[in-house]
Amino acid sequence: MPVTVFFAAGPANWEEYRDPLNTAFAEAGLDVAMSDRADNPLSVDYIVFAPGGIIEDFGPYVNCKAVLNLWAGVERLVTNPTLTQPLARMVDWGLTEGMVEYVVGHVLRHHLGMDAHIHGQDGVWRNSVLPPLARERPVAMLGLGELGQASARALTALNFPVMGWSRSPKTIDSIECHSEEAGLKHVLSRAEIAVLLLPLTDETRDLINAERLAMMPKGAVIINPGRGPLIDDNALLAALDAGQIGHATLDVFRTEPLPADHPFWAHPKVTVTPHIAADTRPSSSSQVIAENIRRGEADEPFLHLVDRSRGY
Amino acid sequence: MPVTVFFAAGPANWEEYRDPLNTAFAEAGLDVAMSDRADNPLSVDYIVFAPGGIIEDFGPYVNCKAVLNLWAGVERLVTNPTLTQPLARMVDWGLTEGMVEYVVGHVLRHHLGMDAHIHGQDGVWRNSVLPPLARERPVAMLGLGELGQASARALTALNFPVMGWSRSPKTIDSIECHSEEAGLKHVLSRAEIAVLLLPLTDETRDLINAERLAMMPKGAVIINPGRGPLIDDNALLAALDAGQIGHATLDVFRTEPLPADHPFWAHPKVTVTPHIAADTRPSSSSQVIAENIRRGEADEPFLHLVDRSRGY
Repeated sequence: MPVTVFFAAGPANWEEYRDPLNTAFAEAGLDVAMSDRADNPLSVDYIVFAPGGIIEDFGPYVNCKAVLNLWAGVERLVTNPTLTQPLARMVDWGLTEGMVEYVVGHVLRHHLGMDAHIHGQDGVWRNSVLPPLARERPVAMLGLGELGQASARALTALNFPVMGWSRSPKTIDSIECHSEEAGLKHVLSRAEIAVLLLPLTDETRDLINAERLAMMPKGAVIINPGRGPLIDDNALLAALDAGQIGHATLDVFRTEPLPADHPFWAHPKVTVTPHIAADTRPSSSSQVIAENIRRGEADEPFLHLVDRSRGY
Repeated sequence: MPVTVFFAAGPANWEEYRDPLNTAFAEAGLDVAMSDRADNPLSVDYIVFAPGGIIEDFGPYVNCKAVLNLWAGVERLVTNPTLTQPLARMVDWGLTEGMVEYVVGHVLRHHLGMDAHIHGQDGVWRNSVLPPLARERPVAMLGLGELGQASARALTALNFPVMGWSRSPKTIDSIECHSEEAGLKHVLSRAEIAVLLLPLTDETRDLINAERLAMMPKGAVIINPGRGPLIDDNALLAALDAGQIGHATLDVFRTEPLPADHPFWAHPKVTVTPHIAADTRPSSSSQVIAENIRRGEADEPFLHLVDRSRGY
C-alpha cells in the first residue's frame, strides 16, 4: 500500500513541486501516491500544505499523521482550531545555505573593498594600503534565528569577530550574544559591517533608524537580506549622503519589486539585489518533506515540529 | 640579561619591523635587546634575516641559536655553507588569512554573480533565475601548499566541491587531491571556477595555456592570486574574447605594476587587483618571530625549521 500524500498547496506550487517531491520520495525509498486532490479525506496519510484556501478545515483528515508546511512561517496555521494533527514547519537547508553564501560573500566583498576593482579599471596600480584582516573587522549579526546563527558561524570560521544581537537574551555556543536596547548600542557602536536577519515584528519595524545609524562607526556598511521594513529608508538615504554609512547592500524592500523610480536604484552607495539572497528551493525542501514522511512511517520523531504554545 | 637579537634584514625593513617586533617581544614576555648592528658577533643570540648582503658569512655568530628568516622563501640561504645554525622560514598566519579571505571572497563573488548588481543599477528587477548553491559549483584549487590547502578548506566549509591539484601526488585530509597531467585534465574539465596558487617553476610556467583553457566548461572563471607567469596572457585574452572563459580575476602579473597599456586593464571580463591578495604583515610575522625566540629560550623546538636536504 503506498503512502497517500495530499498536496494542498495550490496549483502553482503543484507545478513546481510535483517532480522534485516525487524524486525525493523515490530517493528516500518511499512508495508514495501523491495527488493535488483528496477525494477521500480518510485515506490521507500526510498533507503538504501552504496557505491559500485549499484547506480551511483539517477535521475530516482523521488518519493524517502530520501536516507538513511548505514554508517556514506558520503564524496563520497555528490559530486554526481544526488543525489537531502534528504540524511541521519548513526548515530548508537549501535556503539556509543560500543565505549563508550571500551574507559571507557580501561581507567579504565590503571587507576586501572589491567594488573599487570591479568598477575601476583605469590602469593605475594602487597597492599602498594593506587592508585589515577579517579578525580586525567587527561584524554585527542582528537576528540569531536559524539564518542568523548559520551566517554568524560561517563568518566566525573566517575569523571575523561577530557580535550577535537579538531582542530577547539568547545563549548560543560560539557566538557572542547581546540583547535589548543596551546590547544593540554596544553592537552597533563597534560594528564596521552590520547584517540584518531579524524577523519583522512590531518591535523590529524601523529598528535601523536615524538614531541607530548614528551609533555606528563612520563609514560602516549595512547588509539587509532580512526584511525591508527593518530599515527606515529615508534615514538610511540621509546617512549615506552624509557619509555616516559607507554603503548599503539591500536584498529586501518595503515594496517588491522595488519601484524603478526608488532612489535606492540610482544611489552610488546602494547595491540592490532583487530578493535573491535566499529562496526556498524545491529540491532541498522536497528532501525535507520526504525525510519527515520517512520518519513518520518508521515511527521516528518528526523534524521541525511546531510548538503550538509558542506559536512557532 | 636581555636576549640579543641582530636585525640583519636591511634598513627599509628595520623601519617597518622595529616597532612591531618590539611589541611582539613584549607581548611574548621576552626581555630583548634588538639592534640593526652587531658590533660583537659573539653576543648575538638570534639573527632576524632577509637577503640583501647584510650578512654573507654566518661563521662569526657562534653563539647564535637560530637564524629567523623574514620571508617564506629560503632558496638562496640554504646553499650558504657558512650557515650552520638552525634556520627557520617565515610562515605568516596573517599572509595565509589574507589569502584565504581574497580567495573565498572572489569565489563567492563569481558564484553569486555579484558584478551584475554592483555594475548595473538600471531599475529592472531580475529575480527569475535561482542561482545554484555552492554545493553545485565545482571549484579547482591548483596548488596545495600552505595557501592552497587553507583556501581549499575554507571553500569546503562553505560546501563548494573542491578538487585540488598539484604536480606531484599528495594526500591531504578532507581535500580531494589530483596530480599529474591526467589529474589536471580531470580537474579543469569539471571546474566552473579555478584558483591558481601554484609555485612558479619551470614546470608550472604557462601551465594555463590555450589547451588547458579549452578543457574547462564554457564560461568558467579563473582567479589567479598565485604567480603571474602561470598564465599565458595571450591565450587567456583569446579565451575571454571567444567566450570560453567567462571572467578572470588577476592579482599577479608578469610585469608589476601592470603597465597602464596592458589589455587586462581595459578588458570588460578581467578584474585587475594590484597584488593585494596576500602580503606579509609586520604585526603577524613579528609574532611568529617572537614565538620562535620564546621557544628557543624555553628549550622548545623551533617552528618552521628548514630541512636543508629538501631545501625548504
